[in-house]
Amino acid sequence: MAVYRAPENPIIKPADIIPSRDDLEVIGVFNAAVTRLNDEVILLLRIAEAPVMNSDKFVYSPIYDLDKKDIFFKEFDLNDPQIDFSDVRSVTNQEGLHLTSISHLKVARSKDGIHFDIEDSPALVPENEYEVFGIEDARISKIDDTYYVNYVAVSSAGVTTYLASTKDFKSYKRHGIMFCPDNKDVVVFPERINGKYYALHRPASSLFDKNDIWIAESPDLLCWGNHRFLISPSGSGWDSVKIGSSAVPFKTKAGWVEIYHGVDENNRYSLGGLLLDENEPWRVISRTKKPIFEPQTDYECNGFFGNVVFTCGLLFEDDKIKLYYGAADTLVCYAELDLEDLMTALN
Amino acid sequence: MAVYRAPENPIIKPADIIPSRDDLEVIGVFNAAVTRLNDEVILLLRIAEAPVMNSDKFVYSPIYDLDKKDIFFKEFDLNDPQIDFSDVRSVTNQEGLHLTSISHLKVARSKDGIHFDIEDSPALVPENEYEVFGIEDARISKIDDTYYVNYVAVSSAGVTTYLASTKDFKSYKRHGIMFCPDNKDVVVFPERINGKYYALHRPASSLFDKNDIWIAESPDLLCWGNHRFLISPSGSGWDSVKIGSSAVPFKTKAGWVEIYHGVDENNRYSLGGLLLDENEPWRVISRTKKPIFEPQTDYECNGFFGNVVFTCGLLFEDDKIKLYYGAADTLVCYAELDLEDLMTALN
Repeated sequence: MAVYRAPENPIIKPADIIPSRDDLEVIGVFNAAVTRLNDEVILLLRIAEAPVMNSDKFVYSPIYDLDKKDIFFKEFDLNDPQIDFSDVRSVTNQEGLHLTSISHLKVARSKDGIHFDIEDSPALVPENEYEVFGIEDARISKIDDTYYVNYVAVSSAGVTTYLASTKDFKSYKRHGIMFCPDNKDVVVFPERINGKYYALHRPASSLFDKNDIWIAESPDLLCWGNHRFLISPSGSGWDSVKIGSSAVPFKTKAGWVEIYHGVDENNRYSLGGLLLDENEPWRVISRTKKPIFEPQTDYECNGFFGNVVFTCGLLFEDDKIKLYYGAADTLVCYAELDLEDLMTALN
Repeated sequence: MAVYRAPENPIIKPADIIPSRDDLEVIGVFNAAVTRLNDEVILLLRIAEAPVMNSDKFVYSPIYDLDKKDIFFKEFDLNDPQIDFSDVRSVTNQEGLHLTSISHLKVARSKDGIHFDIEDSPALVPENEYEVFGIEDARISKIDDTYYVNYVAVSSAGVTTYLASTKDFKSYKRHGIMFCPDNKDVVVFPERINGKYYALHRPASSLFDKNDIWIAESPDLLCWGNHRFLISPSGSGWDSVKIGSSAVPFKTKAGWVEIYHGVDENNRYSLGGLLLDENEPWRVISRTKKPIFEPQTDYECNGFFGNVVFTCGLLFEDDKIKLYYGAADTLVCYAELDLEDLMTALN
């Protein structure tokens, strides 16, 4: 499928972000939520920071301390054979999983959708017991005159999805946890369908080794139920191991289009398309057999966690899919796909 | 703590139940939900059935076939070194977990609370894709004039909790999945608190190896959110490995009392008490340090899965906790505890 990548890519990189503390460095700015507010494109960036420490003896995990209201560094001995350092994103010891970076969310604004001004102050930072390992991967769904923001809140209690809202991207209201552990990759449909809100989500069944996409309904956006299974990883190829919703769904004449991500056996993240019935979005019409977008460029294949393209949001305008995506868990990039091409792939 | 066990125990045993098919045997009747309807005590029994097959070569997993609307038996070769047969309740191969029995729910009625008439026809049997491995461990919460029944629905999609309701225990309405995979041990508070419904539940975080009790709120009993963490396994002793809510909470002058179960390193199931604030049930007031009820008798220590006492329901009457409980995943038994003793243990 033809993909237009902006020649300006990456459009935002770690060096564009001022670290929140002198002893932290920004290792990634990626997986941005996107919406329009007046004449501006708004991105809600995920900023990942790691301790600035050149140590060949220890790995450090930054954790938010609720009492001190600040980040401290937990130390892990690289020579301890009981500790698993195999994934650069995390460290696992007998106490469980810890992350090697801590994320928060920051707003960037643009008139042309390519050149962004990044705000100095963060939009949302960890502040409660469910967020002490960081807040990640926001999605924005504009419903009526409110922008609903859901993001992943991580702590040793598990991976949850939290709901907040804003009208102006200046002040935010937190509403509570929408989806309990472990659940992430939540996208809320941007309008009510037959009077109900809908969301795609990705619960985990460790007992049955499942990472499937489900759909749920809600009367109020905070409480979700009538959960229904949608699709599983395909078992082979680009989405063989894991899948999850990525961008907020958008409506077309053929139904709701969801751009989702798939992970293969080599931990390579690509994007595919899913078509859902307009009025009964729990009915799957079709799914692309091949990925519609794969890591190919140097900035997608190399970085903090390479071979990753991952989106948390897009603008669907003029029959174009304007995709803001994270490359290699390091950068914000921009690409365009034609709806017509996607619809052909969905047939 | 002093526990009165009925001398009639077990009050219901597998031989009291007619198998649903000639090639199935009832291996357990246990983990009954309980309520009162007019002058009767109603139990919603979990009936577990397994294939009648004396084979030293194979283990069989009974699964409901949605097309044929009947149970078939899946075969597992005992000599296959790739298959894990270590837990008598399940078989795990490369496809995932399968159960060695399949459960459905049946009503039993009694005037005196000890001698029960068991209905011939089942109340609820597997009937949809989320229930093909069986439906288990019901709880009943009477709210206004409706009895809400939640039960565990098991399939290869995961362990979910399903909502149904009845006014008479003759006809039932299914409402959908309340809690997505993996989530079980759900108990719904029997009245609204400040206009909202509340439930305790047990989500699983495999990433953080957590099996904790959480609380959620709901406007309609089907959709749940504002999830909040309540308590973890203690790390040592009787509830060191796993915990989960058991009986529907009941209200006392001191707050809501929840009888929950704990599992130790030897897979021994005991019961403890948890006291929650009357108006803000997400606030934990206290928790019993020792179990209030442990497997001790022969019928609790020996059976299909020994060393288990497990309750899904009780009647709180005359300051007595009238506990219906499953013994060794095989039998329904009855015990009484004094509220005063429990309150002392909760201090």
